[in-house]
Amino acid sequence: MKEISLGLLGLGTVGCGVVKIVENHQDKLKHQVGCSVKVKKALVKDLHKDRLVNIDEKLLTLHAEEVLEDPEIDVVIEVMGGVEEARHYILRALKNRKHVVTANKDLMAVYGSELLAAASENNCDLFYEASVAGGIPILRSLVDGLASDRITKMMGIVNGTTNFILTKMNNEGSSYEEVLHQAQALGFAEADPTSDVEGIDAARKMAILATLGFSMNIELKDVQVKGISSVSEEDLEYSKKLGYTMKLIGIAHREKEKVEVSVAPTLLPHAHPLASVQNEYNAVYVYGEAVGETMFYGPGAGSLPTATAVVSDLVGVMKNMRLGVNGKSMVSPQFQKTLKEKEEVQAKHFLRVHVKDEVGVLSHITNLFSNKGVSFEKILQLPLKEDALAEVVVVTHHASLQRYEDLLEELAGMPMVKEIKSSYRVEGEVAV
Amino acid sequence: MKEISLGLLGLGTVGCGVVKIVENHQDKLKHQVGCSVKVKKALVKDLHKDRLVNIDEKLLTLHAEEVLEDPEIDVVIEVMGGVEEARHYILRALKNRKHVVTANKDLMAVYGSELLAAASENNCDLFYEASVAGGIPILRSLVDGLASDRITKMMGIVNGTTNFILTKMNNEGSSYEEVLHQAQALGFAEADPTSDVEGIDAARKMAILATLGFSMNIELKDVQVKGISSVSEEDLEYSKKLGYTMKLIGIAHREKEKVEVSVAPTLLPHAHPLASVQNEYNAVYVYGEAVGETMFYGPGAGSLPTATAVVSDLVGVMKNMRLGVNGKSMVSPQFQKTLKEKEEVQAKHFLRVHVKDEVGVLSHITNLFSNKGVSFEKILQLPLKEDALAEVVVVTHHASLQRYEDLLEELAGMPMVKEIKSSYRVEGEVAV
Repeated sequence: MKEISLGLLGLGTVGCGVVKIVENHQDKLKHQVGCSVKVKKALVKDLHKDRLVNIDEKLLTLHAEEVLEDPEIDVVIEVMGGVEEARHYILRALKNRKHVVTANKDLMAVYGSELLAAASENNCDLFYEASVAGGIPILRSLVDGLASDRITKMMGIVNGTTNFILTKMNNEGSSYEEVLHQAQALGFAEADPTSDVEGIDAARKMAILATLGFSMNIELKDVQVKGISSVSEEDLEYSKKLGYTMKLIGIAHREKEKVEVSVAPTLLPHAHPLASVQNEYNAVYVYGEAVGETMFYGPGAGSLPTATAVVSDLVGVMKNMRLGVNGKSMVSPQFQKTLKEKEEVQAKHFLRVHVKDEVGVLSHITNLFSNKGVSFEKILQLPLKEDALAEVVVVTHHASLQRYEDLLEELAGMPMVKEIKSSYRVEGEVAV
Repeated sequence: MKEISLGLLGLGTVGCGVVKIVENHQDKLKHQVGCSVKVKKALVKDLHKDRLVNIDEKLLTLHAEEVLEDPEIDVVIEVMGGVEEARHYILRALKNRKHVVTANKDLMAVYGSELLAAASENNCDLFYEASVAGGIPILRSLVDGLASDRITKMMGIVNGTTNFILTKMNNEGSSYEEVLHQAQALGFAEADPTSDVEGIDAARKMAILATLGFSMNIELKDVQVKGISSVSEEDLEYSKKLGYTMKLIGIAHREKEKVEVSVAPTLLPHAHPLASVQNEYNAVYVYGEAVGETMFYGPGAGSLPTATAVVSDLVGVMKNMRLGVNGKSMVSPQFQKTLKEKEEVQAKHFLRVHVKDEVGVLSHITNLFSNKGVSFEKILQLPLKEDALAEVVVVTHHASLQRYEDLLEELAGMPMVKEIKSSYRVEGEVAV
């Protein structure tokens, strides 16, 4: 087979990582796919910028069409990020019968089904392993490795920035703001951290995972999202005392063909395997009916892990080219999506409330719980220094989200309740 | 595409699991591969035995040729176990242009390269994901997911029986014999547990992993093996006190194109991710130059996890049939194998020795260590009740295996040394 030519859209850290791996692993790639591979063109914004790799300036261009319209380019690698422009370029590449590998979760979470359909129409491959948990081959495992199982639940730590922040807050007792600044200084969080800390990045990944794992077209808007920006040191302290570790957890759960997909700060028992995933690492737990529990653990981001995933996809594309079977590996979602109603989402909750420190307050609150049909596993009342207030901390038994939200609303309106300080989901049991 | 017909060799728990999954997941399989699948014949030893699935007796046969020679059977699933007969049947199936899926690690560890070559010659697929860590799609991840990385080290708990035994010994302080009996009663260990407890089963899996991960033809005889049958309660006690957990660890390590593959009881720091893998679970840690650390965790055996892996392979075969590309996915090993010499294997060791409780003994021993160029990280001497003996426990710094073995030999010959009680490899550092 002739040499395979690549066109890159973007040449930041991931793009440079791809160039480096393709150069350094020529022998291995040639052995695996039977021909050599070279980068023919890379779209950049600045021709003369210093880069992490030595690359001939003649290979750089400011014009996307030199990548998208060059008939010699076989595979386009999109590592520029952003949504609208990337979508436009990828559609054009596919129309020109170029295979595409992308690391762009923002794009795949929003336009995944459109792009995959376009790829299929044009008999092209569109691979995106790098878009979820860069260093973990989780998409491939869901599609191939667990192909014959029925996946009922996925739980994951799929955002490195928030896991880094929560790990530090937990270990050092520091505040969210302090640790966020540290993370920004270390390059683990962006200047505008909104998409990470508000859970949007994690929600995108959960949409992609749920789509593949459940074979349903789950979109970003289907994911219930809550971020970590309001998590306080007190919350972490109470979690610890009660035997839990707080993590930003994505959950995708299927019961009787109805699904729930959410991202939220969640209390896990210390012994839960996801509780010990530290710093910027990611991990995805998968429950299959036949296989039981499996877990995939690895670096969630970083330029080299992400570039590795991109090149692994590239190897997949090239193997398909050799066999002449591109564009046939995609299986469109099998099932209609039905999202669970709030009545159908069962969960345990941690709740922290400030109340007036008066006789009978606790019994008013416990009465409300029992009227609403929400029972509790644990309840603590502690006096607070200021203003004759007390703090009440509750861990509930399983209750429907509808009931729990009704309860929260009524609680907030009670005259003896000063403020609902926080409320988090709880997964799993702590041994008493 | 026409219906795909399967022939089973063996119908034990895994075989029955395959039948069940194929029946229950007809819709999913049809959606994924575009045609239905049915079991046409199953080779058994007893036609009238009670089985875990309802299967029409007409589908059973005592004669292998009814599976191997039936031109209508497309895929043969070997779940009978054993080596010579299985090899013979698989070769015959491949010769008759039947694709083969096997869960047989014993076979693949010994005859893997012969069988894969036969498959390739006949344009047939031969898939064997189920042979290593049944519930974890690790082979697929090594071949595809980490395709573009250079894997330098794999460490794994790849035998569920021994991990179950060590977990119980460690948690309950029970003896090896006690726990082995428990494990046999629970069905976690076989009546003749030799292959598990002596590390041979784990060695077979490490040979398969190393062959794929390093792209070298690593055979069972290349693996250094030590089992757990001589591990004592005292060893586990000392390990714990020193900050380590003992696990039966398979290591495959590549440095400068030379490799070491071994299986041995090994001391890991409590914080090491493999140290917390409990009971019958398996986990494989993979270190890639680009991706860094990743870990795959799941059930190592069990009929349903193994059957799931078999059916996932079957889906792979059927997809290839649809695309007409069977027999082309195998990549033969790229590199010549060079095993490390004992001088080149660097490791730390735990050593427990009984010595005469006399003045100057410890200095004799420390002199020997320093003469042999083996330095130590920790040394403890404790008096023993019996016979004026003392116990010396040492954790060494890294030293070559050659040096360490020389030291052991000389130590055993010293007049003040009564007995070398135990010696284990140590991986990783314990924070002081």
